[in-house]
Amino acid sequence: MAESLRRRLPLLLLLLLAAGGLRAAERSGGGSSSAMEELATEKEAEESHRQDSVSLLTFILLLTLTILTIWLFKHRRVRFLHETGLAMIYGLIVGVILRYGTPSTSGHDKPFSCSQEDRPFTTLLVNVSGKFFEYTLKGEISPGKIHNVEQNDMLRKVTFDPEVFFNILLPPIIFHAGYSLKKRHFFRNLGSILAYAFLGTAVSCFIIGNLMYGVVKLMKLVGQLSDKFYYTDCLLFGAIISATDPVTVLAIFNELHADVDLYALLFGESVLNDAVAIVLSSSIVAYQPTGENTHAFDAAAFFKSVGVFLGIFSGSFMMGAVTGVVTALVTKFTKLHCFPLLETALFFLMSWSTFLLAEACGFTGVVAVLFCGITQAHYTYNNLSVESRSRTKQLFEVLHFLAENFIFSYMGLALFTFQKHIFSPVFIIGAFVAIFLGRAAHIYPLSFLLNLGRRHKISWSFQHMMMFSGLRGAMAFALAIRDTATYSHQMMFSTTLLIVFFTVWIVGGGTTPMLSWLNIRVGVDPDQDPPPTNDSFQVLQGDGQDSARRNRTKQESAWLFRLWYSFDHNYLKPILTHSGPPLTTTLPSWCGLIAHCLTSPQVYDNQEQLREEDSDFILNDGDLTVTYGDTTITANGSSGPHTATTNLDSRRTKSSSEEALERDLGAADHEVTSRGTRLVFPLEYNA
Amino acid sequence: MAESLRRRLPLLLLLLLAAGGLRAAERSGGGSSSAMEELATEKEAEESHRQDSVSLLTFILLLTLTILTIWLFKHRRVRFLHETGLAMIYGLIVGVILRYGTPSTSGHDKPFSCSQEDRPFTTLLVNVSGKFFEYTLKGEISPGKIHNVEQNDMLRKVTFDPEVFFNILLPPIIFHAGYSLKKRHFFRNLGSILAYAFLGTAVSCFIIGNLMYGVVKLMKLVGQLSDKFYYTDCLLFGAIISATDPVTVLAIFNELHADVDLYALLFGESVLNDAVAIVLSSSIVAYQPTGENTHAFDAAAFFKSVGVFLGIFSGSFMMGAVTGVVTALVTKFTKLHCFPLLETALFFLMSWSTFLLAEACGFTGVVAVLFCGITQAHYTYNNLSVESRSRTKQLFEVLHFLAENFIFSYMGLALFTFQKHIFSPVFIIGAFVAIFLGRAAHIYPLSFLLNLGRRHKISWSFQHMMMFSGLRGAMAFALAIRDTATYSHQMMFSTTLLIVFFTVWIVGGGTTPMLSWLNIRVGVDPDQDPPPTNDSFQVLQGDGQDSARRNRTKQESAWLFRLWYSFDHNYLKPILTHSGPPLTTTLPSWCGLIAHCLTSPQVYDNQEQLREEDSDFILNDGDLTVTYGDTTITANGSSGPHTATTNLDSRRTKSSSEEALERDLGAADHEVTSRGTRLVFPLEYNA
Repeated sequence: MAESLRRRLPLLLLLLLAAGGLRAAERSGGGSSSAMEELATEKEAEESHRQDSVSLLTFILLLTLTILTIWLFKHRRVRFLHETGLAMIYGLIVGVILRYGTPSTSGHDKPFSCSQEDRPFTTLLVNVSGKFFEYTLKGEISPGKIHNVEQNDMLRKVTFDPEVFFNILLPPIIFHAGYSLKKRHFFRNLGSILAYAFLGTAVSCFIIGNLMYGVVKLMKLVGQLSDKFYYTDCLLFGAIISATDPVTVLAIFNELHADVDLYALLFGESVLNDAVAIVLSSSIVAYQPTGENTHAFDAAAFFKSVGVFLGIFSGSFMMGAVTGVVTALVTKFTKLHCFPLLETALFFLMSWSTFLLAEACGFTGVVAVLFCGITQAHYTYNNLSVESRSRTKQLFEVLHFLAENFIFSYMGLALFTFQKHIFSPVFIIGAFVAIFLGRAAHIYPLSFLLNLGRRHKISWSFQHMMMFSGLRGAMAFALAIRDTATYSHQMMFSTTLLIVFFTVWIVGGGTTPMLSWLNIRVGVDPDQDPPPTNDSFQVLQGDGQDSARRNRTKQESAWLFRLWYSFDHNYLKPILTHSGPPLTTTLPSWCGLIAHCLTSPQVYDNQEQLREEDSDFILNDGDLTVTYGDTTITANGSSGPHTATTNLDSRRTKSSSEEALERDLGAADHEVTSRGTRLVFPLEYNA
Repeated sequence: MAESLRRRLPLLLLLLLAAGGLRAAERSGGGSSSAMEELATEKEAEESHRQDSVSLLTFILLLTLTILTIWLFKHRRVRFLHETGLAMIYGLIVGVILRYGTPSTSGHDKPFSCSQEDRPFTTLLVNVSGKFFEYTLKGEISPGKIHNVEQNDMLRKVTFDPEVFFNILLPPIIFHAGYSLKKRHFFRNLGSILAYAFLGTAVSCFIIGNLMYGVVKLMKLVGQLSDKFYYTDCLLFGAIISATDPVTVLAIFNELHADVDLYALLFGESVLNDAVAIVLSSSIVAYQPTGENTHAFDAAAFFKSVGVFLGIFSGSFMMGAVTGVVTALVTKFTKLHCFPLLETALFFLMSWSTFLLAEACGFTGVVAVLFCGITQAHYTYNNLSVESRSRTKQLFEVLHFLAENFIFSYMGLALFTFQKHIFSPVFIIGAFVAIFLGRAAHIYPLSFLLNLGRRHKISWSFQHMMMFSGLRGAMAFALAIRDTATYSHQMMFSTTLLIVFFTVWIVGGGTTPMLSWLNIRVGVDPDQDPPPTNDSFQVLQGDGQDSARRNRTKQESAWLFRLWYSFDHNYLKPILTHSGPPLTTTLPSWCGLIAHCLTSPQVYDNQEQLREEDSDFILNDGDLTVTYGDTTITANGSSGPHTATTNLDSRRTKSSSEEALERDLGAADHEVTSRGTRLVFPLEYNA
């Protein structure tokens, strides 16, 4: 780990950074040296710059090619290969060309030794025939590898610093995930999602870790292991590989309009378990027992790790939430929405600052960014102007798209250009078995437990689909490549790469057959709940039945969620956005003055006219952003085109948060034409 | 110059880069070293990473603050200070705080000397008590400055590598400038703009260079010069400071809707002269006479420099144009417009690849990006889907906004945090006088010459305004900070900084008074030509007068432009976009097959219905994109609300490119409501 951290700096996100006021000065001073020598160095430097451009160009052309092929695939409705799988294939091809096609010219970097005492300095001044040159520390090299320093120039150029992934490519991906969470279905399944993400990931990590430790023991027995491989390494592998990324599956779900609850479960789980996996792996790395026996179990160190986990997770969560809330307040109390450009820029900067703030405080930027995204979507989004809403959505969509495809094509490339692969068949087979078992041990028992409490059960077909969708993607890769210093880490990295390839291609290609095999409905209108064909569907309309529906919805939702919802609806939304009931009605009367200050004038208007502005959604796939304006209830069981029925009179009679809850839960989040509330049905239609 | 080029790599645009497959390996190898020492180093590294985050955060908070204040200013309609001026002020304040508020702790970087022979290696391996560490060359340090290496850590952190400006911040600014050129007025004034940009910049550079050489001679005489200052340095200063950047003036023009031709002249000149200044300064740097007398005049070296100028400029131009054309072809011949996200991503990647391609070929990326932007706006834009049009526009608008404000706030910061300022009062005063004279010697004589050929003369008030608007901004700063190794360059940098401050604040604040003092019209509808109040305005309507108008328009336009226009309209547009006349009608008959293949089916439809789709505009300020659909002529001299008059019958009778030219020239580019063609008047209304 150590020194390499120092090199995060030039990467620190888009702009960055910056090692020093010095730099400007160090350019070789004008006329003092012999012109010829200077020219030679300059030529060399230019050559290097040119190579950098070429290598980056390679990636850009790769991405361009990927985009064009994706278009072709989408155009022809090919679904067996997702864009990320495609990006990997192109990456592989370029990797092969670079590896075997380019001459292995060794660089002009001639290693030079001179001895020093004590620990290394970060800056060296070297006197070369009277002139002084400054050198900076890059890191330690193990003695055996000194002669490996010379290698193919081009291969080296296309190898990125691993921290690029964490500091530049992951944040937009994760932020976009948070920002595009479909709130309705996400919150309705919040309890299950949290259980899968936290408990599930922990279980999976522990099981995979232990199984792999068995495999490692076996390898040692057979004599297949040539270096150390500790139990903590195995656990780390478990944490790394527990980060699922069903990007392929979700893309197909989106395209086929597969079941929305399943979508919410999978998406929510994958988003949150990325966060859990990151923090979990940091905690495992932080597990350092004191004393002699550095790799045995130590209760103190273990609890320290647990503490680290809780600390980092909650800290990052807070950071994200706080920046989101600050942005919401700023956009609420200024009239920035008159200037969409300023608004978008502010939104972008605030979201970025979350990352930096978290990193500066020692938390995890990527995790903070996720929660920031969720907060922004939940509060700030309501305050933005219409133009800024689409701008921010589109901006992050493009960033997300580019970053994701870049990572996947880089993965393909890395299989051939990465210099220190260690492929151990036993370990690889063991890992595949372990992730299968780990996923199974996490999905089925947890689903069983959750189903005890859930009214709307998670059916077997859903469980199988979740089991099947345990792909590994960008996050696992980024975690694995972060540290490839030791033998064990290198083996873990190579294995992770293969697992990603395998799952993305096979599972990605198999999603559509699997869906039909498991009889999971496709072509569902996202607003619509389970179909009426095989159950006790009832069209509830009018005021009397409305209250019946309300009660069911109430029972349906988790109590935790209801608690949170009413707090959110009565206090947070009115404080942070232009929607919700006025604080003057929800806060106790002695808070009158504060309530009055915090409530924006629009709220009173909203109260009069449309009270529902708090439930607009950011669609993941669509182009529409709906601010639905009414408590309309449309129950429609027919599969034909449906029209919305508007209950104009119900509008003025209700005002409690419970009702708003239903409205939110049932709010249309897709089509403007079906501006209605859908019912929530207590039924399993596929069990 | 030399070694520092090597460090362009970590900066090479948003993502990157990446010095080496090595890196992953150099992390200090696991269990072999004593845990305590490793922990210490890791702590240190984390500390450094944290500081990086803090310093970047500083900038982001600065930008956030700037945005909020800009909003306040716009809200209150304050015009005396532009956002860039504001960003500089905030930068200054933070600079003062960092400089005087933070303790001047020297880092842990203890310089260490060990001598080496020959020229320096790029990589050093150092043996520290048995462990090997790798160091990379940062650059040369002049012997006198060895003890200055220790300095305030925080100051160093907030100092960016100068190449960041060239490789990350300038490209989006310049691309956006090219992409948002208002085509109509730009092309109508193309000849004048080119003259101002090329001749003007060369004249200005030469005059300023010579005047400054006089000042330097004087300083030497008085004994104010403590180091060498060559004639080439003076010329370089001339080139650097000739890059005008009237961002403030243009923003105010936009807001007040000042005269569009003046806007086009100023904007066009500033955009192109940035390109000229960059290439000019590279050529001057490339001027290296051989033999002993390295700073005297040498004809061979001079012509080599001229060759370098022409080579780089035309090469960069070609690169930009070619990538633009390729993008246009790709977007034309694929149905990518069904997937706006893919389209936008492709557009972004192709535009970025221009930069890299140019850099890889040894041309200037920033210049290539400019011409790429213009080409994209002229051709590709027509092929994009409506959503992608707004997406790309908004994406680059946000990037441009952030980059520009970042540069300006950095400038403010640099005044205090840059460590090697040399402020010489004589030089500074001389520079102010020189840029004034240089601008005057460039605007007035050139305008006089241009007016000989122009029908629509550049009035005195326009000339005064252009003289007044010679602000210096981001480009001058980026050019000046690029090389601050020698005494002369440091002095030039400090002076440039002061000139930027002064011009942005004073000129920015004085624009509105100046406009009214010079009687330049404001509140002009961009489509509208000079007002009818004080000249021989005639309402031309009907078919007969239409042809009279046509002839005038013809005379009005430069012959070069007419030539280009007819080629562009008849061949390029039909080949590259979905608009223009079908190639089957414009190409000779023996090209029939090719013509048929290249013409998209839409063109025939367009031909039937609306033939004018080739003249949509990208508006710089507005939110509307207009594809005007008719050859309507609306002449309206009244200042009241006007309605469009449609000549439906004229539509079918004309088809030559000459007519299309008029239509384009006269096309409305702002309001959909005034869907008409404005007349071009051969008159000076303010002379």
